[in-house]
Amino acid sequence: MNSTNIKDDINRLLIKLRAEKPLVHCLTNYVTVNDCANILLALGASPTMSNYIEEVEDVVEKSASLVINIGTLSKDMLNSMIVAGKKANEIGVPIVLDPVGVGSSSFRRESAFEILREVKVSVIRGNIAEIMILSGMAGKVKGVDSEEIRLENSGEVALKLAKKLNTVIAMTGDIDYISDGEKVITINNGNKMMMKVTGCGCMATAIVGAYIGVTKDMLLAASAGILTIGVAGDKALNLLKSDEGSGSFRVKLIDSIDNIKIEDIKSWGRVNE
Amino acid sequence: MNSTNIKDDINRLLIKLRAEKPLVHCLTNYVTVNDCANILLALGASPTMSNYIEEVEDVVEKSASLVINIGTLSKDMLNSMIVAGKKANEIGVPIVLDPVGVGSSSFRRESAFEILREVKVSVIRGNIAEIMILSGMAGKVKGVDSEEIRLENSGEVALKLAKKLNTVIAMTGDIDYISDGEKVITINNGNKMMMKVTGCGCMATAIVGAYIGVTKDMLLAASAGILTIGVAGDKALNLLKSDEGSGSFRVKLIDSIDNIKIEDIKSWGRVNE
Amino acid sequence: MNSTNIKDDINRLLIKLRAEKPLVHCLTNYVTVNDCANILLALGASPTMSNYIEEVEDVVEKSASLVINIGTLSKDMLNSMIVAGKKANEIGVPIVLDPVGVGSSSFRRESAFEILREVKVSVIRGNIAEIMILSGMAGKVKGVDSEEIRLENSGEVALKLAKKLNTVIAMTGDIDYISDGEKVITINNGNKMMMKVTGCGCMATAIVGAYIGVTKDMLLAASAGILTIGVAGDKALNLLKSDEGSGSFRVKLIDSIDNIKIEDIKSWGRVNE
Repeated sequence: MNSTNIKDDINRLLIKLRAEKPLVHCLTNYVTVNDCANILLALGASPTMSNYIEEVEDVVEKSASLVINIGTLSKDMLNSMIVAGKKANEIGVPIVLDPVGVGSSSFRRESAFEILREVKVSVIRGNIAEIMILSGMAGKVKGVDSEEIRLENSGEVALKLAKKLNTVIAMTGDIDYISDGEKVITINNGNKMMMKVTGCGCMATAIVGAYIGVTKDMLLAASAGILTIGVAGDKALNLLKSDEGSGSFRVKLIDSIDNIKIEDIKSWGRVNE
Repeated sequence: MNSTNIKDDINRLLIKLRAEKPLVHCLTNYVTVNDCANILLALGASPTMSNYIEEVEDVVEKSASLVINIGTLSKDMLNSMIVAGKKANEIGVPIVLDPVGVGSSSFRRESAFEILREVKVSVIRGNIAEIMILSGMAGKVKGVDSEEIRLENSGEVALKLAKKLNTVIAMTGDIDYISDGEKVITINNGNKMMMKVTGCGCMATAIVGAYIGVTKDMLLAASAGILTIGVAGDKALNLLKSDEGSGSFRVKLIDSIDNIKIEDIKSWGRVNE
Repeated sequence: MNSTNIKDDINRLLIKLRAEKPLVHCLTNYVTVNDCANILLALGASPTMSNYIEEVEDVVEKSASLVINIGTLSKDMLNSMIVAGKKANEIGVPIVLDPVGVGSSSFRRESAFEILREVKVSVIRGNIAEIMILSGMAGKVKGVDSEEIRLENSGEVALKLAKKLNTVIAMTGDIDYISDGEKVITINNGNKMMMKVTGCGCMATAIVGAYIGVTKDMLLAASAGILTIGVAGDKALNLLKSDEGSGSFRVKLIDSIDNIKIEDIKSWGRVNE
């Protein structure tokens, strides 16, 4: 399968997503929750943000997919995530995990591993530092943003963790690597401006969350999500005027998701497998 | 009273609101809380977002009105709402309730009914699905957004629930119906783009919250709130350029509230009673 | 030192900040937390928003500075703030406190005083009403926004509280007064539009938080923060088109922080000492 074919597959999935409008249940942080809701609506999905333990199971039951994002984690939130995750596993609702800032505290690190023990996740979307920490490799993490770590063998890291955890890994950075433990897909969209807007990672994960709600092919869904936000980011940067900055970029990123078309994926997408 | 008269009444109320700058106390969800604060400031009101049980009574005492929004409800939040609501009832501060996603879990449904038993609310603002659930009618609810339910007798639903609960019902959708159990006012502003931005419902409720803080006429206040955001939404859509989308629409919606003028209500408003 | 010199010092600090990208740990409210994260990224700092008690010490250890903002305070949050604050004191991480709406409830007032007893803060950034309440002077506070209080001796209020608490006070309003108990620096930037966007105060505090992470001179850091957001606010207003309002202003404020240059501080800054 060459690059044109995966773009075709992604485009078909985007069309399917917009037709089905999957309900995406997000247990996510309060910093970027509004952006996640808006980007899901822009994409054509239907977000729901409940995280209270007494209602997460009811909500999971109606959902096409579940997003677990540990950005502002507490013990209560962790408990909700595990309850929601187990329910999702039970009824076959796919899950994407975003291990935001997993290196920032031992509480967060241990919680992430607890989630991975208790819940079967279909995709993990994180930056290089986060993925390296989950892999048990030393990660240099500053806050929630990864330092610019460039590994000779980035694709290898993604592939190994995917194999180890039997899940799809979407490791985003300068170049994005998506692997199911056998293949590695690389994406070369997105730009530096996305580091200046909080929540671009969370939004990427939310978008992956929408795609996993409309297909069984988790490698394709994760690739579709990462490609979609990358292309939208590049289109948004292209629309940015000289007197504008990161505030406007964030607005245009959501605009670009709202306006994304089949042709955009074709002409802007830089994906290889 | 014809359409011109209610527009005049609404315009007078808008002028009063901007002069009085009512303090609107919002117990609301963490997804759209920032948008609610910004739209209240744009309108000319003064928002305060405290929801901690040990301080809600102090805050209610200084407030012109109270907004109760169950978007991200927990047991703690519910307790705060009931404490705040009882205090508001005691000292005559009017309340608007937004039963966000009331159909999404049994916890949320039971909590909404508990609020209605414990607290006397002046207005309920919800979409058709939410209002139908409160009415005990089967509602087809997907996440927090109502499917496009079109009833032959939508106005009737609003009127009956208003009568049953002895409150004003503002049921928003393609057409909005506002009833006090005797009259039904219909508003035909707003547009599909408002479904693509999270929190348009919450913002509508917050605006109703501002208006109920400056009049005793709850039917007028609710109508004023729904008309104001509908007209602003239509103006925002009109300002949207071809390369813009839901991200820019959200910004322009707040701009349009900030810039709304007497003439706008007159020329853009589509209200009937 | 004349006005040119302090501008030079502030410019040097801005350059240093952008080179060091300090990690700013914010324990802050859920209303404006996204704006605080985005403005810190735009400035060139690195935000982290953890507030859970079991991880705040780990995060403080990696941080250049700590922001404590009591905008949506609870007992749990207060406990986290004190734990984080004590850790910061222990290892020499400077703290800025934002006593948001300290007059809105006795819980919040007592909590603010408790923080001040338990934790040594380097800077307090508040509006006139908030600073007056901390000073034990009667403050007329409506919600979280200060009424337009104009004191003949505003600078005196800031200076006295700074001396009393042995900290730097940044008291913002029509004119901003920053004092370390000996000198008073006045800043005459910023504009009314900043009152129409929620979180301009919180963002000012966050920016001060970034500057205190890159210098030992707390008076300079506080002045740099207040001047930076004031200049950005004025530039944003200058960019506002006639059909735009507070929604666009908020976007342009972040743009202006992202784009702020040495020359902007020089030509737009109105600071006296």
